[in-house]
Amino acid sequence: MTVSVVDAMHMAQALRLAERGLYTTQPNPRVGCVIARGERVVGQGWHERAGEPHAEVYALREAKDEARGATAYVTLEPCAHHGRTPPCADALIAAGVSRVVIAAEDPFPQVAGQGIAKLRSAGITVESGLMRDAAREINLGFFSRIERHRPWVRVKLAMSLDGRTALANGESKWITGEAARADVQRWRARSSAILTGIGTVLADNPQLTVRLPAEAEPSSRTYSPLRVVLDRHLRTPAGSHVLDGQTPTLVLHSTSAAATDDRFARVECIAVAEQHEALDLQAVLALLAGRHCSELHVEAGPTLCGALFAAGLADELLIYMAPLLLGDTARPLLALPPLADMTARWKLNVLDTRALGQDLRLRLRPAV
Amino acid sequence: MTVSVVDAMHMAQALRLAERGLYTTQPNPRVGCVIARGERVVGQGWHERAGEPHAEVYALREAKDEARGATAYVTLEPCAHHGRTPPCADALIAAGVSRVVIAAEDPFPQVAGQGIAKLRSAGITVESGLMRDAAREINLGFFSRIERHRPWVRVKLAMSLDGRTALANGESKWITGEAARADVQRWRARSSAILTGIGTVLADNPQLTVRLPAEAEPSSRTYSPLRVVLDRHLRTPAGSHVLDGQTPTLVLHSTSAAATDDRFARVECIAVAEQHEALDLQAVLALLAGRHCSELHVEAGPTLCGALFAAGLADELLIYMAPLLLGDTARPLLALPPLADMTARWKLNVLDTRALGQDLRLRLRPAV
Repeated sequence: MTVSVVDAMHMAQALRLAERGLYTTQPNPRVGCVIARGERVVGQGWHERAGEPHAEVYALREAKDEARGATAYVTLEPCAHHGRTPPCADALIAAGVSRVVIAAEDPFPQVAGQGIAKLRSAGITVESGLMRDAAREINLGFFSRIERHRPWVRVKLAMSLDGRTALANGESKWITGEAARADVQRWRARSSAILTGIGTVLADNPQLTVRLPAEAEPSSRTYSPLRVVLDRHLRTPAGSHVLDGQTPTLVLHSTSAAATDDRFARVECIAVAEQHEALDLQAVLALLAGRHCSELHVEAGPTLCGALFAAGLADELLIYMAPLLLGDTARPLLALPPLADMTARWKLNVLDTRALGQDLRLRLRPAV
Repeated sequence: MTVSVVDAMHMAQALRLAERGLYTTQPNPRVGCVIARGERVVGQGWHERAGEPHAEVYALREAKDEARGATAYVTLEPCAHHGRTPPCADALIAAGVSRVVIAAEDPFPQVAGQGIAKLRSAGITVESGLMRDAAREINLGFFSRIERHRPWVRVKLAMSLDGRTALANGESKWITGEAARADVQRWRARSSAILTGIGTVLADNPQLTVRLPAEAEPSSRTYSPLRVVLDRHLRTPAGSHVLDGQTPTLVLHSTSAAATDDRFARVECIAVAEQHEALDLQAVLALLAGRHCSELHVEAGPTLCGALFAAGLADELLIYMAPLLLGDTARPLLALPPLADMTARWKLNVLDTRALGQDLRLRLRPAV
């Protein structure tokens, strides 16, 4: 790979453009594109919504004739296949760009390497891998879904300083403050689906919809994440918010239960295999990946969160910690199998720490 | 108070000088002094050790004749009484300084206001209160001891992300990493005493001595904090580190127990009143204040730490959080009485958050 500081500058801008699609591109990946002649940007664009043009098309439209002989910076390998839109590799060739710099290779079987091959066979110089990690990070759900056949699972937890999520009596309202709650909405908004368990439905009757703060709302085009409820015995009560049909909802239950009554009229119900007296979490994730679920946001109780974590299926923890103490009789953060000794402890890496009002937010990923 | 930016600059320097005594001045307060003519510093000093000269004396020695007509900046009101050294107010008058700027007024009954009065009656202009909060913070233990008749109680806790301090089987070694453990030594070193409970002695046999990292060691003159063990029934086993006589140690027990055997030959034992089937913590703190204990560093288990907190006697929490999970069967952080509802939760304010290796350190104080 032969790249310069100017290349890095343009690719960084292309990544910023890609981020503009954070709340809207589902199930497509977020992609940005810059077309430049030396330091001068002649066109830029980003993919905003499935079914609409890709980033390259917008950038080429803006560049017009100046695209000829220019360099195109794309955060994801240009597509080579006919999907809902014509192949971007063809558009770049037709526009006469002489060089294409790519951040991340497309993992999608129909694209992988073919976009690059097509460009090269047209005589275009192609460099790949510039800022690959950052480009993969923006679409970590997309990459997980295609490469691992399961969504990127982000578990959100709100807790007190002493690792408690609710009082012994179950009361859990307002552990964290307004800024933390607004932040949660942004993580919900970028997800393909929001997962919860029957315990949380029964205890809190959550809406699990996205209520973005006014200033963060990019447009009315924000994608509405699918609500997913793990309800093995179909115990979700009539009148629960998750059954209101306001947004697409999936209720997963065991094969021995059947959703025959009126309660489930406005949602979709699917039977899933069981394992160890619970729905098989691997099967649940495979099912969601099959439905184009890239990032899965989990807001659930200690049992489901603990089970995901213990099974190695929690890819990221998003912990909101309020500076208060609830004591040892309050509810624990995660139910995990007892550890025999300290060498068996679950280790994580801190990605970042941020103050949100009085609260702290920690993002962590299991240490590999 | 009439102060300028130049005054602020010199007082900030005096505060930095005061901090040099962090590990050595016990039981005296940390005090710094700058003598300046306009912007030019002509003398500076700090108090290093009880029985040795005060900050003002060192600064005057350095300033020599230039002290005449100069301004003295002192972080704590100059003493007016004969203690182990002659009164500093007299020294400042004798040197002919024309103005004295003080950060914090001395709370000590023999001094309070008398230093200022003495200076004023000698015709010296006195300003008081510049950077008072910062000056009180450096000596928060000293102020607590004099004003509240109890030490400033700092409770150190090391926990996992999910608020656990040890496995169910009690294993607790190496929750936090090396950087966090080195940081703990600095907090021990600045304390007058280190408090623990019999549970911790039995479980961990701690040394509770100061082992400062080489680069932090200010000198061989570091004060050795008193070790204090709450051992109601005198159950500390023979051979425990806290009984080894390596450093002054106090074992507090109930009036119904008597330290008659050999085990306690190298330590001091004192009977304390009981309350609710435990040693009376207020009485313990009053006793320690009476022994010039300013900052009390607590390293104990969930019972003693929880009791201090629940009684409103924990002034500060120093929490080291390791990015790992131990699960709900592991030992809790604090034993606290159950809360009836969330309005009763214990609220704290975060003073600062710091990354220490892989761990996070949080300093918090109860919200008032």
